[in-house]
Amino acid sequence: MLLNCDLGESFGAWTMGIDEQVMPFIDQANIACGFHAGDPVTMQRTVQLALSHGVALGAHPSYPDLQGFGRRSMTLQPDEITAMISYQIGALNHIAASQGGLVSYVKPHGALYNDMMRDEKILESILQALRCSPHDLALMAMSTADNSTLKALCEKHGVPLILEAFADRGYDERGFIVPRTQAGAVHKDSATIVEQARNLAAGTPIQTISGKPLQLEADSLCVHGDNPDSIAAVEAIRKALKDLH
Amino acid sequence: MLLNCDLGESFGAWTMGIDEQVMPFIDQANIACGFHAGDPVTMQRTVQLALSHGVALGAHPSYPDLQGFGRRSMTLQPDEITAMISYQIGALNHIAASQGGLVSYVKPHGALYNDMMRDEKILESILQALRCSPHDLALMAMSTADNSTLKALCEKHGVPLILEAFADRGYDERGFIVPRTQAGAVHKDSATIVEQARNLAAGTPIQTISGKPLQLEADSLCVHGDNPDSIAAVEAIRKALKDLH
Amino acid sequence: MLLNCDLGESFGAWTMGIDEQVMPFIDQANIACGFHAGDPVTMQRTVQLALSHGVALGAHPSYPDLQGFGRRSMTLQPDEITAMISYQIGALNHIAASQGGLVSYVKPHGALYNDMMRDEKILESILQALRCSPHDLALMAMSTADNSTLKALCEKHGVPLILEAFADRGYDERGFIVPRTQAGAVHKDSATIVEQARNLAAGTPIQTISGKPLQLEADSLCVHGDNPDSIAAVEAIRKALKDLH
Amino acid sequence: MLLNCDLGESFGAWTMGIDEQVMPFIDQANIACGFHAGDPVTMQRTVQLALSHGVALGAHPSYPDLQGFGRRSMTLQPDEITAMISYQIGALNHIAASQGGLVSYVKPHGALYNDMMRDEKILESILQALRCSPHDLALMAMSTADNSTLKALCEKHGVPLILEAFADRGYDERGFIVPRTQAGAVHKDSATIVEQARNLAAGTPIQTISGKPLQLEADSLCVHGDNPDSIAAVEAIRKALKDLH
Repeated sequence: MLLNCDLGESFGAWTMGIDEQVMPFIDQANIACGFHAGDPVTMQRTVQLALSHGVALGAHPSYPDLQGFGRRSMTLQPDEITAMISYQIGALNHIAASQGGLVSYVKPHGALYNDMMRDEKILESILQALRCSPHDLALMAMSTADNSTLKALCEKHGVPLILEAFADRGYDERGFIVPRTQAGAVHKDSATIVEQARNLAAGTPIQTISGKPLQLEADSLCVHGDNPDSIAAVEAIRKALKDLH
Repeated sequence: MLLNCDLGESFGAWTMGIDEQVMPFIDQANIACGFHAGDPVTMQRTVQLALSHGVALGAHPSYPDLQGFGRRSMTLQPDEITAMISYQIGALNHIAASQGGLVSYVKPHGALYNDMMRDEKILESILQALRCSPHDLALMAMSTADNSTLKALCEKHGVPLILEAFADRGYDERGFIVPRTQAGAVHKDSATIVEQARNLAAGTPIQTISGKPLQLEADSLCVHGDNPDSIAAVEAIRKALKDLH
Repeated sequence: MLLNCDLGESFGAWTMGIDEQVMPFIDQANIACGFHAGDPVTMQRTVQLALSHGVALGAHPSYPDLQGFGRRSMTLQPDEITAMISYQIGALNHIAASQGGLVSYVKPHGALYNDMMRDEKILESILQALRCSPHDLALMAMSTADNSTLKALCEKHGVPLILEAFADRGYDERGFIVPRTQAGAVHKDSATIVEQARNLAAGTPIQTISGKPLQLEADSLCVHGDNPDSIAAVEAIRKALKDLH
Repeated sequence: MLLNCDLGESFGAWTMGIDEQVMPFIDQANIACGFHAGDPVTMQRTVQLALSHGVALGAHPSYPDLQGFGRRSMTLQPDEITAMISYQIGALNHIAASQGGLVSYVKPHGALYNDMMRDEKILESILQALRCSPHDLALMAMSTADNSTLKALCEKHGVPLILEAFADRGYDERGFIVPRTQAGAVHKDSATIVEQARNLAAGTPIQTISGKPLQLEADSLCVHGDNPDSIAAVEAIRKALKDLH
């Protein structure tokens, strides 16, 4: 079970996240590509930090919306999405390759991620960009109770799939995370987070907010590097995963 | 002697240039990378058009200034320039590679081009991006009476140099083009343009606006695809160059 | 019956529309405010042109999306819409007031216009910006067969309503214009356009694409200044309206 | 002697400054207008906070450069500067007026501020926007040993001048603040800051970094709300100024 984290989300004079502190504990860095965050210098520094820790580089492309941090859905045409994804992957990959690195996977950000999970056309527009890439790129997407569509479409386009799950989020019975506006959306208790991480890693069911067991396939856990609390949670998860083996 | 042209300078709903008409006559397409013009879809289409005509792909990166079309100088730090250039090259190259193409050279745009020609630090910031690229990239820059600095710095960084000249612009004795605000800046007469192109291609001196001869080294001529007149000029230059051989 | 037109949609080096040619024939100029088109200099010039022709100034605010020309819907929060509308109105109004003009109405642009017509929350977010304006501002919106909700919400917020209709667009029986992707969406024939304009001005029913009569209330007709054909249509409409009186 | 502070410099998901903590101690809020920082919602909230503390509203316009936070000089034409300043003033003023407030002065930001202080053409481009404003606007600019040009140009355009000085910055003998790259640029010692504030308020000379006395005319002191230390300094200055009366 790998750990992935959204990083490089500063922009110009504004800083966000404490990337230096979370990087030692993760395996995969989802790096902002300039459309919701991450100016070129920030991208260069984030790649450098990731490479110094042996962390895999992922592109974290977004709708073009700095003001909304990519959290606002936009109704783009399929060819606009494909080109926009290719643009962002390439920008990050060239900065990475200039330092001897290589982008190995793509995790869409924010509203684009949500839209991809609910709309096959959007998912295919993204896969179109990945399948045409000159080097292999996997798609990181959200695991739910039923990943059959995700798997079928990734297979159709010849794109490897990385399924991610969340240790600190409440799940409903369909395997979707509970929206932040609802009760039970976020686990605050460290023991609960670690327990959910351990189950996801062991392949044993987690508990939904309704109390039912949920079997969730996952290759990677999404963790956060926003503040000292989240860093502590990542450390605890990392330790628990090590103890598991 | 090759012909190069700035292309892909539309943006979203706005169109600029008649790329389809000039593409058949040129050898090298300098393609906008989104910072002064050229959204991802426009970039995708321009690459497609260039590849269909066997035209070499060049990145045409700029300061981040859509409103000013990259024509306004900005005081960026060297690391900002390097990262920004790398970002734009990568974005275009990934879109190109997705179609089986490869960006083979870089010609900075507008104010950045001018700043590079007058400031060695800026030139080196750009070369830094090119030297670190995972594949070979040449720099296209303006030939003047004395290209020694350009050549020395390109050699220092191991970056091939493509010297370009202008068939339709008046030159001063130092080999700089006369600013558009001054008399003699632009040749309107087709015969004069073709004569200057022929001299540049043959390696014979051209005439400066003061009437003196000027020997100008050039690998490529910069032509324009803005309007029917400029297309006609490109055709005339192309024909003259063919007759030369 | 007044004529309104979207104007000032150039941006930086890109031009769109032939504002100088359509301005003499219209009464109300919907001026882009920088978010989908219209940089500050373009806004200044468009205001100047409108004032010189005695044309009323309207703000034409948009989602923040230059790349998509404001045609892509974005899921903004109500407070984001209100603040964004207020920002754009103010920007245009200050440029107008600096020349002795005053923005008297607001017509949302593109996707924001469509979203306002289908979602009362979005409509109210816009009205919120207008009601709080230090000077009176009317809302220009699309007339349909049933304008009761529009009227009720405008009244609730104390905002005058300007209903606009289209002389060159096909209507369905609910009084909505037929999408451009469908047959009958746009009238190409000048006689049909003029006939529809005459009916709308006289308060007599127009014919829907299904052939049924449609009574449509309208204070203003939306015309276009994109090309010589559309200018000719505006002239014909203007002449027909004069003959009516 | 008034206290002014740059505020509202958050943008979308990124926060900057602790505006709530510094607002109680200042008289004049220089509010970002969206070009270097300050999205419309941030502007709305900053105005609201300022009004609730009875703090005067100032526009803090910038070059269009979010990525560079307005700190990078750009070579704009005079009409571009005038229109851009008018745009930003209007945007803020409409948001202010919607809450019953009024922008009463303008302090250019960052590189634009520096450029205005060294280039009379740029200063006049800014004054042009202020003189044409439909309501009175003062210009806030930096006091130096010789304010004659500033005063003459403001008088020429009929624009009131607010001279600001810095309590926490070292000055050279010409009355310019020492660049941050040099020794003595920033006073860290609270006693030194308060002493300089007291002298500026009393109209007695301050000491330059060379040890000479410098008489500096000032209507307002620029203070900072970045962090707890700067807030403490503002409190100390405020207390010292009160004790002076």
